[in-house]
Amino acid sequence: MAVTKFAIDTRKFRVKEGDKVDLADWPTLVDPVYRDKDDYHALLASQILRLSDLQQKLYAHDRDSLLLIFQAMDAAGKDGAISHVMSGVNPQGCQVTSFKHPSGIELEHDFLWRTTRELPERGMIGIFNRSYYESVLILRVHPDLLKAEGFDPKKADGDFWRKRYRSIADLERHLAANHTHVVKIFLHLSKEEQRKRFLARIDEPEKNWKFSQADIEERGFWDDYQKAYAKCLSETSTKEAPWFVVPADDKFSARLIVAHIMLERLESLNLAFPKVSEARKNELQAIRAQLSE
Amino acid sequence: MAVTKFAIDTRKFRVKEGDKVDLADWPTLVDPVYRDKDDYHALLASQILRLSDLQQKLYAHDRDSLLLIFQAMDAAGKDGAISHVMSGVNPQGCQVTSFKHPSGIELEHDFLWRTTRELPERGMIGIFNRSYYESVLILRVHPDLLKAEGFDPKKADGDFWRKRYRSIADLERHLAANHTHVVKIFLHLSKEEQRKRFLARIDEPEKNWKFSQADIEERGFWDDYQKAYAKCLSETSTKEAPWFVVPADDKFSARLIVAHIMLERLESLNLAFPKVSEARKNELQAIRAQLSE
Repeated sequence: MAVTKFAIDTRKFRVKEGDKVDLADWPTLVDPVYRDKDDYHALLASQILRLSDLQQKLYAHDRDSLLLIFQAMDAAGKDGAISHVMSGVNPQGCQVTSFKHPSGIELEHDFLWRTTRELPERGMIGIFNRSYYESVLILRVHPDLLKAEGFDPKKADGDFWRKRYRSIADLERHLAANHTHVVKIFLHLSKEEQRKRFLARIDEPEKNWKFSQADIEERGFWDDYQKAYAKCLSETSTKEAPWFVVPADDKFSARLIVAHIMLERLESLNLAFPKVSEARKNELQAIRAQLSE
Repeated sequence: MAVTKFAIDTRKFRVKEGDKVDLADWPTLVDPVYRDKDDYHALLASQILRLSDLQQKLYAHDRDSLLLIFQAMDAAGKDGAISHVMSGVNPQGCQVTSFKHPSGIELEHDFLWRTTRELPERGMIGIFNRSYYESVLILRVHPDLLKAEGFDPKKADGDFWRKRYRSIADLERHLAANHTHVVKIFLHLSKEEQRKRFLARIDEPEKNWKFSQADIEERGFWDDYQKAYAKCLSETSTKEAPWFVVPADDKFSARLIVAHIMLERLESLNLAFPKVSEARKNELQAIRAQLSE
């Protein structure tokens, strides 16, 4: 069976530095980038193969690391995208960290502290399922939560948030200069599709555990979240660490696009297996000789 | 016995933002800020008392933290300053971290990673005995060490170091915005005084352990280090996170000046014990009543 030839133009989904984002202008659904379900599986499998190869090079090259950040509304498919796209990659070269409610000790530090501890080592792919961006998303929608960080919510004005965006942009510039390349994925879901997925969670026993009253309550703040995301994407998408707004109403397309974004970024690093020097070749020959005895 | 009244003008030792530092212009010795040894002890004791009081307020207030960074040439008295000045402060409110050779896992991350993990929590005083500044000091003098961080030393040009200074300034701005106040102390020692202290280390059995061949070798790079420090002080002293060049040839004066700098910074935070609300007062009265039964 011939696999669909496709070239996803990831630039369509990329927020350019300085762009003012209005999420209403960004699609939550695009024409499928695959022909049918079989085609999707075949395409994903071939992407995973390439990803796996590049990850090995990243590891052997031992200079760069890739940090992929996922942010989205509930039920947008973060967990699924991570598990399906990363499934074929050697887990020894990949660290996934999910950030849920911050712990006491984390709240006692600045808002970049807890994620910094989990940054990928050189040669590794790091995946953040949620991240420090929550500090300008959920906190912006619910500023009362700032109290737990030692801030007075009444003083959280525009200047306060601008400083947060700047802290984030500064951090990501620093990381880029030190070979940690940050790529940020916003899985862009429609409110209607979220409703469908929430209903499915209620109906399907194996998805029940994923659902709580709190999820429904957060849905009530949908518009506030869309605004907070738009502001965040506008302020923190940079050349070094771009945001991609990936249409998420169709999970299959979303996963293929995410895989493609990762592949492009890894390929741009011009990774190669370390060159074997003459001295090293001789050393290897000497070892071979010893093993033959 | 009357303790000397003295008011140390710490501005004399402070590097202003944008200043171009030539360390030859900065004294390693000033007129003693105490009358005699007894006077020094009495002065230090009274400073420690105030420091201890302010530390308690910092802890109770639970909003800010203070990070004091010590950098210096060998034998300048970092350890002594830390132990003598901090001796009277409740160790529960104070974390001292000494940074020596970075470990393997630390070298696998960006150069700000290992110190970030040790940043003080809210309400705490953190002391860094050496710090991320080593990455623009020892590494600038010995760029070959960059290899262990995955960088090519040949590419470490002016732009490379400027990016490092910027990363540091960005980090400290972020910390200040998040209530971690950074104060940086360079204990400024003369080469002659280092020679005397090294000789003393050889002669005194209880100081022998502090001395190695490597220390003498680093002394051979004295001028390079002075240049690296000058550049670093010029590039990273900011209003939010200033450098102080503390004359260190006289240990007693150095300690009193360091204590004074800390006191001033803590006092500027306008710390207070949390106000007890009416509701809380009633709660306390109710507890009292239960205890009386």
